[in-house]
Amino acid sequence: MTISRLTADQRDAILAELPRWRLRSDGLAIEAELKFADFNEAFGFMTRVALYADKADHHPEWFNVYSTVHMTLTTHDAGGLSQRDADMARFVETLLPG
Amino acid sequence: MTISRLTADQRDAILAELPRWRLRSDGLAIEAELKFADFNEAFGFMTRVALYADKADHHPEWFNVYSTVHMTLTTHDAGGLSQRDADMARFVETLLPG
Repeated sequence: MTISRLTADQRDAILAELPRWRLRSDGLAIEAELKFADFNEAFGFMTRVALYADKADHHPEWFNVYSTVHMTLTTHDAGGLSQRDADMARFVETLLPG
Repeated sequence: MTISRLTADQRDAILAELPRWRLRSDGLAIEAELKFADFNEAFGFMTRVALYADKADHHPEWFNVYSTVHMTLTTHDAGGLSQRDADMARFVETLLPG
């Protein structure tokens, strides 16, 4: 199955909706730096995202050190951003305070 | 509590015991690139390490994309490698095949 790449307009709409996320400099991914109270909360968050990712068969690139999680979302099969990244970013937002 | 930094001899003994791990170029951390069958296995591994880390109050720096986990171990309170990193690396080894 080919996955469509988002248009520039679709991408801009998502970034406007999700202020925590920014476009990576190459324009092919979105990324966010997420802060939690401690490692337990950070990994609890990662576990909820992992269960989503496993079901959606769409996976983040992410780095964790203690209470910080840096996430990058892209769709390799689309050669850039797809609806799957937008869906995952929206799901991530539902897990975050405020 | 001050945590002692490993001596060069202790560090070399650990690296000899754990061939999957290499010293980071600055000498202050050890790192390993771990490959799994898929995301489910990779995150299952991370979950077991996270439970250990939470109990030990010693946390890895790690990056995951799909089936790959890149781990870096260091002890900030020791300004380099400590026994805690050696213990965590040995625990990681018990979770890996072969």
